[in-house]
Amino acid sequence: MVVVMQEGAKEEQIQHVIDRLVSMGFDIHRSTGASQTVLGAVGVPADFDPRDVEVLDGVREVVRITQPYKLASRAFRPQGTVVQLPRGVQIGGKEVAIAAGPCSVETPEQINLIADRVAGAGAKILRGGAFKPRSSPYSFQGHGEKGLVMMREAAEKSGLLVCSEVMDASQIQMMLPYVDIFQVGARNMQNYFLLRSLGTLSKPVLLKRGLSATIEELLLSAEYIMAGGNHNVILCERGIRTFETATRNTFDISAIPVIQKLSHLPIVADPSHGIGIRDKVAPMARAAVAAGADGLLLEVHNDPDHAYSDGAQSLYFEQFDKLMGELRIIAPAVGRTIS
Amino acid sequence: MVVVMQEGAKEEQIQHVIDRLVSMGFDIHRSTGASQTVLGAVGVPADFDPRDVEVLDGVREVVRITQPYKLASRAFRPQGTVVQLPRGVQIGGKEVAIAAGPCSVETPEQINLIADRVAGAGAKILRGGAFKPRSSPYSFQGHGEKGLVMMREAAEKSGLLVCSEVMDASQIQMMLPYVDIFQVGARNMQNYFLLRSLGTLSKPVLLKRGLSATIEELLLSAEYIMAGGNHNVILCERGIRTFETATRNTFDISAIPVIQKLSHLPIVADPSHGIGIRDKVAPMARAAVAAGADGLLLEVHNDPDHAYSDGAQSLYFEQFDKLMGELRIIAPAVGRTIS
Amino acid sequence: MVVVMQEGAKEEQIQHVIDRLVSMGFDIHRSTGASQTVLGAVGVPADFDPRDVEVLDGVREVVRITQPYKLASRAFRPQGTVVQLPRGVQIGGKEVAIAAGPCSVETPEQINLIADRVAGAGAKILRGGAFKPRSSPYSFQGHGEKGLVMMREAAEKSGLLVCSEVMDASQIQMMLPYVDIFQVGARNMQNYFLLRSLGTLSKPVLLKRGLSATIEELLLSAEYIMAGGNHNVILCERGIRTFETATRNTFDISAIPVIQKLSHLPIVADPSHGIGIRDKVAPMARAAVAAGADGLLLEVHNDPDHAYSDGAQSLYFEQFDKLMGELRIIAPAVGRTIS
Amino acid sequence: MVVVMQEGAKEEQIQHVIDRLVSMGFDIHRSTGASQTVLGAVGVPADFDPRDVEVLDGVREVVRITQPYKLASRAFRPQGTVVQLPRGVQIGGKEVAIAAGPCSVETPEQINLIADRVAGAGAKILRGGAFKPRSSPYSFQGHGEKGLVMMREAAEKSGLLVCSEVMDASQIQMMLPYVDIFQVGARNMQNYFLLRSLGTLSKPVLLKRGLSATIEELLLSAEYIMAGGNHNVILCERGIRTFETATRNTFDISAIPVIQKLSHLPIVADPSHGIGIRDKVAPMARAAVAAGADGLLLEVHNDPDHAYSDGAQSLYFEQFDKLMGELRIIAPAVGRTIS
Repeated sequence: MVVVMQEGAKEEQIQHVIDRLVSMGFDIHRSTGASQTVLGAVGVPADFDPRDVEVLDGVREVVRITQPYKLASRAFRPQGTVVQLPRGVQIGGKEVAIAAGPCSVETPEQINLIADRVAGAGAKILRGGAFKPRSSPYSFQGHGEKGLVMMREAAEKSGLLVCSEVMDASQIQMMLPYVDIFQVGARNMQNYFLLRSLGTLSKPVLLKRGLSATIEELLLSAEYIMAGGNHNVILCERGIRTFETATRNTFDISAIPVIQKLSHLPIVADPSHGIGIRDKVAPMARAAVAAGADGLLLEVHNDPDHAYSDGAQSLYFEQFDKLMGELRIIAPAVGRTIS
Repeated sequence: MVVVMQEGAKEEQIQHVIDRLVSMGFDIHRSTGASQTVLGAVGVPADFDPRDVEVLDGVREVVRITQPYKLASRAFRPQGTVVQLPRGVQIGGKEVAIAAGPCSVETPEQINLIADRVAGAGAKILRGGAFKPRSSPYSFQGHGEKGLVMMREAAEKSGLLVCSEVMDASQIQMMLPYVDIFQVGARNMQNYFLLRSLGTLSKPVLLKRGLSATIEELLLSAEYIMAGGNHNVILCERGIRTFETATRNTFDISAIPVIQKLSHLPIVADPSHGIGIRDKVAPMARAAVAAGADGLLLEVHNDPDHAYSDGAQSLYFEQFDKLMGELRIIAPAVGRTIS
Repeated sequence: MVVVMQEGAKEEQIQHVIDRLVSMGFDIHRSTGASQTVLGAVGVPADFDPRDVEVLDGVREVVRITQPYKLASRAFRPQGTVVQLPRGVQIGGKEVAIAAGPCSVETPEQINLIADRVAGAGAKILRGGAFKPRSSPYSFQGHGEKGLVMMREAAEKSGLLVCSEVMDASQIQMMLPYVDIFQVGARNMQNYFLLRSLGTLSKPVLLKRGLSATIEELLLSAEYIMAGGNHNVILCERGIRTFETATRNTFDISAIPVIQKLSHLPIVADPSHGIGIRDKVAPMARAAVAAGADGLLLEVHNDPDHAYSDGAQSLYFEQFDKLMGELRIIAPAVGRTIS
Repeated sequence: MVVVMQEGAKEEQIQHVIDRLVSMGFDIHRSTGASQTVLGAVGVPADFDPRDVEVLDGVREVVRITQPYKLASRAFRPQGTVVQLPRGVQIGGKEVAIAAGPCSVETPEQINLIADRVAGAGAKILRGGAFKPRSSPYSFQGHGEKGLVMMREAAEKSGLLVCSEVMDASQIQMMLPYVDIFQVGARNMQNYFLLRSLGTLSKPVLLKRGLSATIEELLLSAEYIMAGGNHNVILCERGIRTFETATRNTFDISAIPVIQKLSHLPIVADPSHGIGIRDKVAPMARAAVAAGADGLLLEVHNDPDHAYSDGAQSLYFEQFDKLMGELRIIAPAVGRTIS
């Protein structure tokens, strides 16, 4: 941490700051320039709030220079993490992992049809919601366990894995037999009870970035899971909230290379939620792979016009097929493959 | 809902859109202008996603014109809601309600000292955290039930009510005897499990606006609680996330008059979190009252320099006293009182 | 400036960074901790881009610790600046300065009527637009010099000063005899040609914050004017762009105390543009004064329903009178007066 | 335009609104539902402000349904615009147009070296700054006309075209012989004097999106240029300002497909400014082409470590060569070529 004193700060103010820092457990290096004093403070306690120093008399600015996350940082595993899944599927390896499926699981027919089709086109993971966090209490909230049963059966038939959202810690035990990946939605990115509970498992967790979460906060939420012992965390960019209203969210593709530098965890992209309208999903999916994403989550539906939820951002089967073809052209440009 | 067709949309496209809308249960009014057709659709189903129409061929734009919330809307109770609390305290009445206290409950001595002092200065409610949602898993997470016991005792001695944060539905039963108001933090504003559980109670809920939540989303989250039968909801502005980095958050004071027009629920302000640094708390508190807030949440600490959390935004006792004096000057300008 | 090396940075990387910094003209202090090296660099050249160091191998982060503005900083004139205007009017003194008037100057009758009325209610400055920057090329663009003539005459009759917007450097000479304050609009906050031209004058400049300008950028734009020799700069908060769509802009009232700490320049508020709709202007005006603003810009119109522009955010005369009464109650709470 | 009345609006309020709309020149269609009345208003005057109706008694919401731009809209030229440049270069055609060069023109040697090299790698346009809008008045402001002379000579030798920024209308005549494309920077996107002046030319204008400009505002600024008769406008995405601080800006790649739907004008991307740091430029450049951009602006420098400005975001020659190779793999996925 670096403490920058105001120009003209008095010696007694400086001494007071030094005393406080020492009492907090820091080692101090003092640099005195012509007009300004700067204090370097080494050994930041985990639970330190820089503002506690910022409010002291004579202080102009406090700069925290240690990343607040440890286990999630690139330095912790410089070579990167490859999350290993059943059936030999990997996230973070050479292959770009494709998860596809409907927003909501609706009927056995629907989910079987979709699973079969997306598996044929190259997807490895079936995504779909059984618990749906909806802004309105009057919207369809998902089929719950019944939906998970349908999903698991469809996945088994088609040779896919299952990724589905958990909304509350109380659902984890029930969901365990059905899912290969627990998805944490954007609205729950800072639901620390849920994160801590998932930290006690060994099953992979796909953690979506909150709508207004900084990349640092996303990594801190990953740290909550990892601190409990579960290091199988997959990060997911799904769009952030900005002033622009022409799109539902602003899909922050730059988060992909930024996260790859800061963290060893794999990062996938969800262009369906990132952009929110079907005809822009394919361009954003291509862009995410071109930027180096380790995988994609795509909403695909046999009949988007009658989907229970998010139909407008679901791809038709033919659109998904066409997109997969385009992605296969792009992947080699970033040294990746799509089978 | 209004559906605007593209200029030059073909008759068959228009008919297709009309057919779809009718099949969804809408009544349709068609207006055909020189260059453009507009469809008015009356009777929006609760679970309708405008994007399902937006993706149809020939459609330029879909405009939802019904507010998605009902119980939280001003139209539901035009005269406004006054939340009634024990000891005759009201939120939403003529008196501006002041809740004050530390960020975290630390020791019996600390909370007693603070309760006594803020009660003397005119506060009616003791605020303090026993469960603390912290960005880092390594930060102090609160004393839990032990903290609530201390808080209740301090409040009883000083004649105050208790407001404290609930982080998970599983904590509600335990907390019931200790608190007069359940606080839902910004990070949990869209934790629908929690909101639904609180909806089954009759105790008041103070619902904080999420860091990137629109006012509409805040009202929809209030709707989740109210839909369960609990109409005692108090809204709270506590700052939104913007590009500006000179302040921790941007305290959106304009939300106060906006919400008062859209909703009948009382709206209070939390300038301590809204601005995040002690020397700006008083100006923002004054501004919130001048803008018409029904109450304030203020962090006050006997020894901010050694607070377990958020010390930098906690007021010293003398600052709190001075602020209360200023607020008593301002309140009459908006037809309010502070006792 | 502080350069934080990555954990495990090699000695040769560190040496390379030091060499580069020395060649740029810095003095270097090196602190080597158990896991990390930090370099303090003193003597930042004016034209230094921290990213030039950020891209060097082994560097984790570069933190600039010198404010990039000098003349606009509080340290340059700790006691604060009071801008002196004709007729003894001050901005930044004990009195809260009120500027009021229509968005656009329309007719002599209109501007005379308004000037007379706002002067009677306590305004000291007539604000009004002769050049209007409009988002659409098809909107009314203002009466130009003719409008300035009308405005000057109305102001003289009513004993007011004139504040009006300059849109291009080529208009300055023509405008000089008509205005007492040159207003720079939000869209031109970073029009450096215009700022430099205004820097060669001695007449005061009211500089509005850009819609997405940080407070630091606002102060840097003030620095452009001051660097030319004109220190009579008045800053103006008028709302920033955020994700919230319920209001036209988010009126950032916290900018007022923040700027008062960072800079010696007076800061006024424009709630009419900040909030954009009439019924929220009064609450925001009260809030700005309660937060400590040195003055207000208010749009007032004799017939808002037929205003050429921005009628929806213009106050009726009676609303303005009522507001002035409320402000007179609030001002003493911040040690100010309104005559 | 659609005017939504409040539930329970009185008949006299509705009549008053209708009368006002008719007096403004609208034709009105009235739809009366069980609980709500909706008014369709056809024939919006160019200079209409929806807020003038929003403030009328009984009105809940006003929805403008006509795009405020005409010439820039896709409907104006559904087949799209291909901007034709000298030497047969096109922007908006099958070939992805690459403009490359330094941030600032520094010396004849520098610009010749760079021009030669980027031409060899496949660029068609030399980009470089002679006038530099800098946040700080103390930063290098560019070589002015001298820089343009150098740039023109270098371009001629290498068979490239010239694209350079114009900062003020007073520079246009001088610049005409040197440039093939006038660039308008992000800070000047709403400098209407400048836009209008460029509208009287026939030379192409590359218009950068402002840091906080919506896509609609970008198209309105294009409309300013086109309304003057100059239809050769190229739009440019270069990053928007959001809450995320890990990147300089958030490069909004989704703007590319969105603009291609709303407008017929070509859209290029500037990943160098969009992301602001060298090692992320290539991923973002690949993503932009994968999303369908009509061209790229890339900062390339022979010696980025000693560049006068923006060195940190400038590519080394080898990085540029490698990137061009990757883009040639990606282009066919979107039906494009790079020669």
